[in-house]
Amino acid sequence: MAKDLVKMSMLYDLYGGMLTEKQRELFTLYYEEDLSLAEIAQNEGITRQGVRDTIVRAEEALLEFEDRLHLSDRLSGIRLSAQKIAVAAYEVGEINRRNYFDTRVDAYVREIIEATRVME
Amino acid sequence: MAKDLVKMSMLYDLYGGMLTEKQRELFTLYYEEDLSLAEIAQNEGITRQGVRDTIVRAEEALLEFEDRLHLSDRLSGIRLSAQKIAVAAYEVGEINRRNYFDTRVDAYVREIIEATRVME
Repeated sequence: MAKDLVKMSMLYDLYGGMLTEKQRELFTLYYEEDLSLAEIAQNEGITRQGVRDTIVRAEEALLEFEDRLHLSDRLSGIRLSAQKIAVAAYEVGEINRRNYFDTRVDAYVREIIEATRVME
Repeated sequence: MAKDLVKMSMLYDLYGGMLTEKQRELFTLYYEEDLSLAEIAQNEGITRQGVRDTIVRAEEALLEFEDRLHLSDRLSGIRLSAQKIAVAAYEVGEINRRNYFDTRVDAYVREIIEATRVME
């Protein structure tokens, strides 16, 4: 059970709603609160092995959802495009500020950069 | 079983990978090929009621996935932002073409509009 924090957090963000309440609880303590298996076991009054089994099952479920649906891949593609858009809009803003001082362009550029935020 | 084509197609696009092969097959014939329940029953050599039950179960599963994960809502928000970006970029392009003839701005505008396509 190597802890791949970035990947698991992303998958949990997408598919956490499909897990059981118990899986979500232990997964969050382990991945978000960063407690150890032993600490979780003590807090929850279950064995370390029990905690481990539940988290492993949750991880496997999240990986299987991604394998079936590829929504994390899809959102990564969107995120990448949003970054490209923000960079290009920023460049347009700079060109405008250095050469044309057109307030309409400035407003549209700000609108574009603002709209990329929902995609991050 | 009222046929909500737009909604069901969107949910199928997101969550179809979670359905069984049989559910996917009958769902596609009904929603994408637009065959009637009776036609599907005849083609598949099963009863009309059997076809109906399978499709209803598939619809219920898709609705439950959305209820748990809200990914369709999330993607709708992204799609809306992508449209706003494309409109704003188009306006910048028009302002540029009418006033400044700056080829760099033109190129960035095209890049922005292009990048919104992956979000549609």
